Amino acid sequence: MPLSANNPDRKSWLHVDKNSDFPIQNIPFGVFLTRDDIITIGTRIGDTAIDLGALHQLGYFDGIPLTDDIFLQDTLNDFIADGRKTWRAVRNRIAHIFDSNNDALKQNKHHKEIVLFRLDEIEMQLPVQIGDYTDFYSSIEHATNVGSMFRDPDNALLPNWLHIPVGYHGRSSSIIPSGIPIHRPQGQTLPNEATEPVFGPSKLVDFELEMAFITTDANDLGEPIPIEEAEEYIFGLVLLNDWSARDIQKWEYVPLGPFLAKNFATSISPWIVTLDALEPYRVEGPKPLKPQLPYLQYKGKKSYDINLEVAIRPKGAKETVVSNSNFKYMYWNMVQQLAHHTVNGCPVNSGDMMGSGTISGPTPDSYGSMLELTWKGEKPIKMKDGSERKFINDNDTVIMRGYCEKDGTRIGFGEVSNKLLPVYKKK
Amino acid sequence: MPLSANNPDRKSWLHVDKNSDFPIQNIPFGVFLTRDDIITIGTRIGDTAIDLGALHQLGYFDGIPLTDDIFLQDTLNDFIADGRKTWRAVRNRIAHIFDSNNDALKQNKHHKEIVLFRLDEIEMQLPVQIGDYTDFYSSIEHATNVGSMFRDPDNALLPNWLHIPVGYHGRSSSIIPSGIPIHRPQGQTLPNEATEPVFGPSKLVDFELEMAFITTDANDLGEPIPIEEAEEYIFGLVLLNDWSARDIQKWEYVPLGPFLAKNFATSISPWIVTLDALEPYRVEGPKPLKPQLPYLQYKGKKSYDINLEVAIRPKGAKETVVSNSNFKYMYWNMVQQLAHHTVNGCPVNSGDMMGSGTISGPTPDSYGSMLELTWKGEKPIKMKDGSERKFINDNDTVIMRGYCEKDGTRIGFGEVSNKLLPVYKKK
Repeated sequence: MPLSANNPDRKSWLHVDKNSDFPIQNIPFGVFLTRDDIITIGTRIGDTAIDLGALHQLGYFDGIPLTDDIFLQDTLNDFIADGRKTWRAVRNRIAHIFDSNNDALKQNKHHKEIVLFRLDEIEMQLPVQIGDYTDFYSSIEHATNVGSMFRDPDNALLPNWLHIPVGYHGRSSSIIPSGIPIHRPQGQTLPNEATEPVFGPSKLVDFELEMAFITTDANDLGEPIPIEEAEEYIFGLVLLNDWSARDIQKWEYVPLGPFLAKNFATSISPWIVTLDALEPYRVEGPKPLKPQLPYLQYKGKKSYDINLEVAIRPKGAKETVVSNSNFKYMYWNMVQQLAHHTVNGCPVNSGDMMGSGTISGPTPDSYGSMLELTWKGEKPIKMKDGSERKFINDNDTVIMRGYCEKDGTRIGFGEVSNKLLPVYKKK
Repeated sequence: MPLSANNPDRKSWLHVDKNSDFPIQNIPFGVFLTRDDIITIGTRIGDTAIDLGALHQLGYFDGIPLTDDIFLQDTLNDFIADGRKTWRAVRNRIAHIFDSNNDALKQNKHHKEIVLFRLDEIEMQLPVQIGDYTDFYSSIEHATNVGSMFRDPDNALLPNWLHIPVGYHGRSSSIIPSGIPIHRPQGQTLPNEATEPVFGPSKLVDFELEMAFITTDANDLGEPIPIEEAEEYIFGLVLLNDWSARDIQKWEYVPLGPFLAKNFATSISPWIVTLDALEPYRVEGPKPLKPQLPYLQYKGKKSYDINLEVAIRPKGAKETVVSNSNFKYMYWNMVQQLAHHTVNGCPVNSGDMMGSGTISGPTPDSYGSMLELTWKGEKPIKMKDGSERKFINDNDTVIMRGYCEKDGTRIGFGEVSNKLLPVYKKK
C-alpha cells in the first residue's frame, strides 16, 4: 500500500498554522477524553482533535476491515495489533477525508460537531497500555559522558558498549502522559564522605531526553525477530522524559541497575507519530566504530533526523531552552535494538515501549540531561529569570519538543511537559 | 473477618490424599481452561479442580458482593482488585461449601458435574496478567555466594546490600506457567581469554529458585506504602523459576543489570496460595546485621516457613533432587520489599508480581542455583541416571516444589516444572 498520506502537496480544509507540528502529512494517533467524558481514539490536524470512533460510526472508514469498536477504546493496543496494512489504510483515509479537495465532511455541519474538538475541550491520555517498557542506553555521547564522570575518562565506554545495544527493563506503572505533575521522590542516598546511608528527598532530580518507539505483536516466546524484519513491528514514536534521581541512582544501581532512581515517573508525549509519517526524514546513522555481530548488521537508512529541545520553566517565569539535540545521533538504532531484544526469544507485544536512552549530541549544548549539561552540577545553567540550575527545582516544569523539517514540511511530536512538585505529603 | 477457612480440624467431602498440597485449608486461586474450552477462575481441593465461575452462577456465593462475571475471566486481576475482605469471604465460603458436614453441593449430582473437574481435564493458565514484574535479590547467602565467586570473597556483599532490599525490573511478556517448554537462548558472550564477543547458544543455562508475591492495587503515583500497611496489599504467593543464562549475563550486565540473560523465560506455579492460608506458618526472620532505616523497620513475624526443593529430570530418566531450601532464609521480607519499592511513590497495581531473588540457605545443599550448587561448574552434581550436571542440559526438566507443614496440616504450592528444549529453529 502506498504512503499517499505523506503527499507533501496535500492541504487540509482544517486550519493549520505555518509552524504546526501537525499538518495533514502527520496524522498521529492518540487517546483522549472528550467534553462528554467519553474516551476515544483520535488524531490531530493543526489544533483540531478528531474523534476516530465517531468518524468510524458515521461510516467514513467503510471499506477498511475494522471491527466496530476498534476506536471506541481507551488504548490503541488493539488497533496497533491489527498491523501495518491497517494503520496505513486508516492514515491514508484520514488524509483523504480532510483533504482540501474533499467536501464530504467539510460540508456536513452535524458530522463536524460530532467529530471535531478544540484542544481545550479534550484531555490527552496515555495512548497505549504499556505491557513492558525497556530503556536502552544507545547514545555514545551520553555513555561516554557518564563513563568519564563516574569511572575513567580514558576508558569511558565499558567493554560491552560497542558490541551490545545495552538496555534494561523499566517500570510500566509509573509511565504518565504529558501534563501530569509528579512529586520529588524520597529515598536512600549515601552522602559524600558518609559511611551510612540517609533517607530523605532526592537532591538531584534530573530529566533524560529520550524518544521511544511503540511496537505491535511481533513474535512468540523463543522466536527471534531478524533485523531485516524489525521495522515491520514498529508502530510509531513519542518523546520520553526518563526522570531520574541521581543521588538515589548512585547508591542503589550496583549490581542490578537503576530501580527507584527511575521508577517514580517516566513521562511521554501523548501523540504517537507513525514510522510511516517519519519516512521522508530517514538519514544514515553513525558509522560503527567496531565490527558488529551479523544479527545486528542492517542495510539502508535506519536513523531519523528529528530535532529535539529541552526547556525548563520555573514557576511564574518564562522558559529557558537548556538543550538542543537530535535523534540521529543515536549510535544504536531501533531495528538493532529490536533485533537484540528478541535474539534470545523474548516476546514483544502490541503496546510495548522501548526508550532510546538519553540522546546526547557531540557538543556540550546538545547533552540530554542536567547531569551532563552542568557536568555533575559543576557548571550551573543560567536561566532567563536570573536564577541558576544544577538540577531540577521544585515547581519547575520540564518541557521536551521534537520535530522533523524538510522541503517545507514539518512533522512534529508536540511536547512532553511535566511539573516537579515538592515531596508528596499525605492528605 | 475471621480466617475460618484455616480451621485445621475441617475435613472436605472431596477426597484429599494424605500428602496433598491442597487440603481444604489451602484453597488457592488459579485460572484454567476446561474440557469445554472455557477459561474460568478456579480453586483446587486434593486432585479436584473447582470452577468458581460455575459455582457463582449456581448461586453458591450469594450474599457476598461480587459482580456476576468476576470469575468468568481469563485472569484474577479484577478479583484481586476487590481487596482482602472479598478474598476472605470467598475463601471462607469455599471452605463451607466443601466441608464434610455440608451436603448441599455434595448431594447435587447435576451441580457437581458442572463444577468439578479432574486435573487431566483442565489446562492451567497464567493466573494473572502481570502488569509489572520486579525481582529482588534478598537472600544474603545467595548475594554472598555470587559476590565471592565474581568479586571478592573478603568483601562479598556490596556496600548497599545490608541497607537496601536490592531489586530490579524484570520482563512480564516472558512469564509462563508451569508446563510450557522453553528454548535454550542464544546471545552474545565473551569467551574466557577472548577480547571480542561471539554469538551462539548459551552454554550456561541455570535455574534460580525463587518465590514471588502477587499484589492488589496499592497506591497512586507519588504515594508511598508504609511498611505497617504493606501486608494488606499482598494477595498470595507462587513458586518462581528465574531462568538465567550465566554466560550472557556476565557479558551484558554491567552497568544496567541483567537483561537478555533473564528475559527469555520466567516460569511460575499456577496456583496462587493466599497469604491468609500461610498465616499459621509465620516465623521470625533473620536478625538484621546492620541497623535499617525507619521506613524498613517492622514489627512481628513477617517471614514464612516454606520448605522448598529443586529437582532435575533428564529426558527419559528419574528426577534427582539437587537443592533443599526454605523461604524463611530471606534476609529481606515481603513487607520490606513492598515498602522499599513504593517509598519513592512508584505505583503498585493488582496483578503485579515481585520475586524474592534466589533463595539460598546456609548449607551448600540448600543453594538455589546451579551456579552456586556446582560453584561455577567446579563441582558437578551426580544425577541418579549416572550423568553429571554443571548447568542445565537440553531436554532436562527443572521442577520446583514448596510446602508448609505444622501440626499435621500441610499447605503446598504444587510445582513449577518446565523443560529446556534445544535452541529454537524456525519451522
